[in-house]
Amino acid sequence: MTDKLTAAEHKEHISPLLENGWTLAEGGEAIHKEFVFANFVEAFGFMTRAAIWAEKLNHHPEWFNVYKTVKVTLTTHDADGLSALDAKLGAKMDQLAGG
Amino acid sequence: MTDKLTAAEHKEHISPLLENGWTLAEGGEAIHKEFVFANFVEAFGFMTRAAIWAEKLNHHPEWFNVYKTVKVTLTTHDADGLSALDAKLGAKMDQLAGG
Repeated sequence: MTDKLTAAEHKEHISPLLENGWTLAEGGEAIHKEFVFANFVEAFGFMTRAAIWAEKLNHHPEWFNVYKTVKVTLTTHDADGLSALDAKLGAKMDQLAGG
Repeated sequence: MTDKLTAAEHKEHISPLLENGWTLAEGGEAIHKEFVFANFVEAFGFMTRAAIWAEKLNHHPEWFNVYKTVKVTLTTHDADGLSALDAKLGAKMDQLAGG
């Protein structure tokens, strides 16, 4: 799960995220998305649900929050790039955010 | 609570925070502290407790988390600087972090 994605895996797992608001960052070695909610309670509620999943997956985001905005960056440091875990956590976050 | 602190108030309310690991940021208009915990669960547990207080105070931090580290910036945009709410939330965060 923490191996760097091959080109074919990247296309399969990352492309759907890129079509759903994620962008490549750090020279393609990370993905980034900005989530905007109605208010702080909604934003932190999302973070709380995502945090539990992150811990379950043992794969943690880099994220910034101010009021209703949550900016997330996902990468796999052990792989020096994107792994299946980033795809999995990214898709889970989209699901938790309701989109 | 959201008025910009006078010099005397700044000395009274912000100085104790500066002696407890906070630093002035953004030209003195904000305070910043990096909290480091044992692991992600401890770090996010701290964030959760702090989030509830932030919502109670209706004063929200700018904060960044990666794994066991939480970097917090407090400022009062309405005051263009530091207010009593920043001092209050900063002191509460120190208490919640156990220091």
